[in-house]
Amino acid sequence: MSRNKLVVQKYGGSSLSSTNNISKIAEKIISKTNQGYMVVVVVSAMGDSTDNLISLASEVNSNANTITREMDILLSTGELVSSTLMTLSLISKGKNAVSLSGTQAGIMTNSVHGSARISDINTNRIQKELSENSVVVVAGFQGLNDLGDVTTLGRGGSDTTAVALAVALNAERCEIYTDVEGIFTTDPRISNNARKLDKISFEEMLEMASLGAKMNPRSIELGLVYNMPLYVASSFSSTDGTLIYRSSNMEIRKAVTGIAVDKNVAKITIKGVTDQPGIAADLLKPLSDAGISIDVIVQNTSSDGTTDFTYTVSESNLDRAVNLMNSLDQINYKEIESGKDLAKLSIVGTGMENSPGYAAKMFSVLSSLNVNIDMITTSEIRITTIINKNDIKKSVTALHDAFELEKP
Amino acid sequence: MSRNKLVVQKYGGSSLSSTNNISKIAEKIISKTNQGYMVVVVVSAMGDSTDNLISLASEVNSNANTITREMDILLSTGELVSSTLMTLSLISKGKNAVSLSGTQAGIMTNSVHGSARISDINTNRIQKELSENSVVVVAGFQGLNDLGDVTTLGRGGSDTTAVALAVALNAERCEIYTDVEGIFTTDPRISNNARKLDKISFEEMLEMASLGAKMNPRSIELGLVYNMPLYVASSFSSTDGTLIYRSSNMEIRKAVTGIAVDKNVAKITIKGVTDQPGIAADLLKPLSDAGISIDVIVQNTSSDGTTDFTYTVSESNLDRAVNLMNSLDQINYKEIESGKDLAKLSIVGTGMENSPGYAAKMFSVLSSLNVNIDMITTSEIRITTIINKNDIKKSVTALHDAFELEKP
Repeated sequence: MSRNKLVVQKYGGSSLSSTNNISKIAEKIISKTNQGYMVVVVVSAMGDSTDNLISLASEVNSNANTITREMDILLSTGELVSSTLMTLSLISKGKNAVSLSGTQAGIMTNSVHGSARISDINTNRIQKELSENSVVVVAGFQGLNDLGDVTTLGRGGSDTTAVALAVALNAERCEIYTDVEGIFTTDPRISNNARKLDKISFEEMLEMASLGAKMNPRSIELGLVYNMPLYVASSFSSTDGTLIYRSSNMEIRKAVTGIAVDKNVAKITIKGVTDQPGIAADLLKPLSDAGISIDVIVQNTSSDGTTDFTYTVSESNLDRAVNLMNSLDQINYKEIESGKDLAKLSIVGTGMENSPGYAAKMFSVLSSLNVNIDMITTSEIRITTIINKNDIKKSVTALHDAFELEKP
Repeated sequence: MSRNKLVVQKYGGSSLSSTNNISKIAEKIISKTNQGYMVVVVVSAMGDSTDNLISLASEVNSNANTITREMDILLSTGELVSSTLMTLSLISKGKNAVSLSGTQAGIMTNSVHGSARISDINTNRIQKELSENSVVVVAGFQGLNDLGDVTTLGRGGSDTTAVALAVALNAERCEIYTDVEGIFTTDPRISNNARKLDKISFEEMLEMASLGAKMNPRSIELGLVYNMPLYVASSFSSTDGTLIYRSSNMEIRKAVTGIAVDKNVAKITIKGVTDQPGIAADLLKPLSDAGISIDVIVQNTSSDGTTDFTYTVSESNLDRAVNLMNSLDQINYKEIESGKDLAKLSIVGTGMENSPGYAAKMFSVLSSLNVNIDMITTSEIRITTIINKNDIKKSVTALHDAFELEKP
């Protein structure tokens, strides 16, 4: 199926932090239309405006974050402001433009306020505006549920809006503009050898989502499922970014594509838990109820009928999680241990599939640096270790060398 | 027809200038529900937030005020913010509450962006929320047109929203809370004898619209036409306000109810205009095209085939209006004169109808003070003079005494 000569461009809040920046972005949008493209723009709220709204809400209601219907309406105004300002800027530069709210853009969602999922998109209004030669500026992050109430899509919501619209409009690609220049082999702040990738597959990007570009996994999944190429680049630089694409040739992929790091990691171990069905769910439910995300989960096999159960949380959630564990009263365990100042270090690459050699090489590099590995988990295309935060820099540098990531 | 035990309360921006004020207003709303009333609240945008949005818009587009579709979406966000914050505050105080945008409140308008007129109200959603025992907080000033675009109702728009909703919901009355304590016999800043009125008829209020309570004539007209009693009072004081009502007994009315003053007046006289049909329209059209409001218009009868044509504008528009007059090239006239530092002084009262004695008394009081009267116009229940701004204070004081307005 041939695609329309149309791109969806998404600009994040840091790219829209001032009216001056909005004007610069408007120029960038116009230059794309001058190349003969129809352009649909998706914007986030300006700079800190969302934080300011949250702060106002907490002043009138200390539990405002739990009243999600009202918070959704409140927060959706941030994107309405930035979309109208962008439209006014485009018009002032002589370009036809029109802003559309999520509702007007036809973005229908379920009713889970605060983290709604897009259920359908009716593109009639967008198509009409495009046919009149307008740039269409859509307020990101928001939609409408069946009750006629505004919903928001949660973290990374504007990325999701952009990819979903690109799919619905059969766009050539979805361009995500942000404050980094693309996807790197590892975090450039950690390793000077970090190299920007021209291309990366969806599968690898899913594993590397925390790498440089703070892209939300939902939008990457959408791109993967609907085969919508994503292009990640800098809002204010003209250097080429990174294309995230559906890999078609499984054989010529590089084994290891990048090294992902997350330095905000703490762990909790519940020792000597009676090993019975449902115990993991019982342990994790209080965290889920409290809205605490958990990441790596490791449960060792046991021989004496008990098991040690370990999981990681972000450091900021450690104290709350420990308190919740201490108040578990229907579960038998020996003791609870916690640790912080940890980091998650992963090597990612679709070429690694089924090749145990990569794990061995990774562990041997870390061993040669005297880095202690606390936990290990793997997926088909990723090997993740939990290590001490202080060991990250030397580990990344050595692994970047060992897997020759500086070479294209 | 008996009315529902329901009131619509409207709170203006100065009453919502901080989250602290929003909390105080929430208490006031709850005290009304504790009297057994269903309450629908209409809010304006917080304090200066509308000005801030206009300023952002002008930074990206110097002609932003002419791009009314985008400005309407932008400005409508101010009321969305205040309505959700009010709702969050009510909930934090234990009261069921829900915010509705103008769209959700079913307020349909025509498509004149920036000054749309309400065409219809579908109250289904409000009724549903009221039946679930919620306070319904409606974002004022806004509606939806047939294209699915947000519109705003122009100056005084939130008052209009409130009165229209009160009519549609068959409310007992519509309460307008503001930064003054009610309607006074004259401006309390000008005369110490100014007395707050317990009651005033719609007709009188229409003439006195500039008196103390900055109420928009549109909402008063709506109240008059649909016989919806309006109550104007202070947001933060518990003293009684003023009821604006449909006068039923024409005989027992007081002759003069109040004295209205507008100190922002300038005049333009076009002398020696050829007196022919259509000349007034030709003179005024350029002003209308430039969005300059004119107020008092006086045209003297003529005997020599020419006439002097005088009208007033606000002082801030004087220079622009004079320039427009000087560029009239298809109209014959002798000269253009202009004057500023003028004021409009009116006595208002339904009881004055057809009684020339009131005009005579007014002119004789002004004459005894050596106040020169520049222009005179009258309506059935109002006599208006244009005088020197410096003469206002003594004129108001003397007229207030002469018509015994200090007496209830």
